[in-house]
Amino acid sequence: MNRLKTIEWSGNCVKMIDQTLLPAELVYLDIETVEQMHEAIKLLRVRGAPAIGIAAAFGLYLAIRSFPEKGSVAVFLTLLEKNADYLAGSRPTAVNLFWALERMKNRASTDASSCDIKALKQALFSEAQNILDEDRRMCRSIGKNGLELLRGKRTILTHCNAGGLATSEYGTALAPVYVGQEQGIHFRVIADETRPLLQGARITALELSKAGIPVTVICDNMAASVMASGKVDAVIVGADRITANGDTANKIGTYGVALCAAAHKIPFFVAAPSSTFDLSLPDGTHIPIEERGREEVALWGGKKTIPDGAAVFNPAFDVTPSHLITAIITEKGIIYPPYEQNVRAVLETPQQETAGCTGA
Amino acid sequence: MNRLKTIEWSGNCVKMIDQTLLPAELVYLDIETVEQMHEAIKLLRVRGAPAIGIAAAFGLYLAIRSFPEKGSVAVFLTLLEKNADYLAGSRPTAVNLFWALERMKNRASTDASSCDIKALKQALFSEAQNILDEDRRMCRSIGKNGLELLRGKRTILTHCNAGGLATSEYGTALAPVYVGQEQGIHFRVIADETRPLLQGARITALELSKAGIPVTVICDNMAASVMASGKVDAVIVGADRITANGDTANKIGTYGVALCAAAHKIPFFVAAPSSTFDLSLPDGTHIPIEERGREEVALWGGKKTIPDGAAVFNPAFDVTPSHLITAIITEKGIIYPPYEQNVRAVLETPQQETAGCTGA
Repeated sequence: MNRLKTIEWSGNCVKMIDQTLLPAELVYLDIETVEQMHEAIKLLRVRGAPAIGIAAAFGLYLAIRSFPEKGSVAVFLTLLEKNADYLAGSRPTAVNLFWALERMKNRASTDASSCDIKALKQALFSEAQNILDEDRRMCRSIGKNGLELLRGKRTILTHCNAGGLATSEYGTALAPVYVGQEQGIHFRVIADETRPLLQGARITALELSKAGIPVTVICDNMAASVMASGKVDAVIVGADRITANGDTANKIGTYGVALCAAAHKIPFFVAAPSSTFDLSLPDGTHIPIEERGREEVALWGGKKTIPDGAAVFNPAFDVTPSHLITAIITEKGIIYPPYEQNVRAVLETPQQETAGCTGA
Repeated sequence: MNRLKTIEWSGNCVKMIDQTLLPAELVYLDIETVEQMHEAIKLLRVRGAPAIGIAAAFGLYLAIRSFPEKGSVAVFLTLLEKNADYLAGSRPTAVNLFWALERMKNRASTDASSCDIKALKQALFSEAQNILDEDRRMCRSIGKNGLELLRGKRTILTHCNAGGLATSEYGTALAPVYVGQEQGIHFRVIADETRPLLQGARITALELSKAGIPVTVICDNMAASVMASGKVDAVIVGADRITANGDTANKIGTYGVALCAAAHKIPFFVAAPSSTFDLSLPDGTHIPIEERGREEVALWGGKKTIPDGAAVFNPAFDVTPSHLITAIITEKGIIYPPYEQNVRAVLETPQQETAGCTGA
């Protein structure tokens, strides 16, 4: 097993894999400035909701780390606020991005009373590191919880990449597969290639095959017939934002997979940390959907495949209505329908599960 | 309007567009030998069931056109048979290929009694030309029949290419759109890009935009969310083979589109000539599905996007069960459920529709 390290603090900068170059090249980037981090998030060099949250937190630290230790706390906090807004603008849909930035700002507010810039900077660094460490624990908990749902199942279909390269370590959707492997339970994975950016082909297939887990890549449009052939025992995907009623925004194509799974009576699971939930939104109709550029769809290895006379529509996410979701796997436990009640019930219970796994 | 000429006889060879190069380059091939035609069909330089039938018929003529006029009729017929088998091996799923070759062989048998090689060769050329001419009339009839079903609808989603570049002229799935345009009824088309070979992006988008019809390309996995947004009034696709109960083999991904259409209560139409039906097969479970090479999925403009450690599954077709099909549009009329009865009923009625449109 040779698990890749997605993102980590490395002495004086953030070291992370440039995921846009995978699988052809495995390049580690040294991110030293907030501008580099903004660009990395925007261009999907780092992607996956949890990893984006970690990246944003460290990005905000990078923005203020050179602030003079004798400077004004008020100016420091204004700078922090300005850079948080700047980073928040890098991806409009990923709620973990806003969550992590909010958490960093809260930590700064709490500690600002000390009027000690050096201490404030240390607090912010340690908050970013906490987000990373909690992510590691969170992934393991999701893995353990998800594995319960997958008992007796063998072949799992997944869409996009919500594996280790979407987080700090085990991933979310793929965490049960990794935890299973540790326990001697061996799954096979079918990975949708996930157009337009091919995260399934480039990233999911890479991390699974590196970890010694059998993986087969299909084009997105093959999922329905693969399901019809009886080859899929369960679907498990990640999430970019989940609303109070369980509606789930995730990578474009997830909704179609959910419809196909429902038609074949295949369980469809969403795996996501509690930070992915946005309880301020009652349902998925309120989730803004990022539309991305034409060139992602219209260029094929740099070559134009769509004539100029044709338009292109490129939404980055879709919303899977909760009635298509069999269960949502979080680090705090498994959420079953009816989601209107159970989302809040599970998220708002004291964090025994999380607490229980801090030693994991 | 600037409709492209897919395939035609040009003095002493078959002139056809190399569709693998579209839309970057518009290259016309001069096909002079049966080997070139076999390669062209196999490598999808010509694609779409009706166009493959036309190509195969002319390909068989190319195989025998140099046969000595004083030669033996028995040897001629053996050569014909051998080359028909050779061409039949170029694509295993397209029933029009076998149908066209069978028709050519039947014509040869009928005319063989004359013992005149020159006349036999002329008869085979004229049979190939008949297949082409009938295809032109067939497309127009499908267009007229389909247009009736699309009255009041505005935006049509299609998968792959069953347009003019799949046939000799108007196409099948796109024929109602072209006939509508002639009558001042203006549709918009949403074209699935159609992985792995991107026929939707490269070919459907090209022919529609050249014809002045608004077309928007999406990745295959976006169809579900575009449907959910209410932007699709009907789906219309072609077919590679339709069994006696209406089950339809078509380009991979069609089945998923049909499931999504059903979930959104959007009518799902199949448009295909009667030659696409294979009444010897009771249902779709009997249709052999071609599996194609890894490289079609794993290379991106020549660059490897899937790591070697991962497997690839690449079926070229899937089967849409007839219960998901609202109606099947043929040149002989529209077939509605229950297909078990109505497929035979419409196909076996005297060909008034076809006869009525020969003057079109």
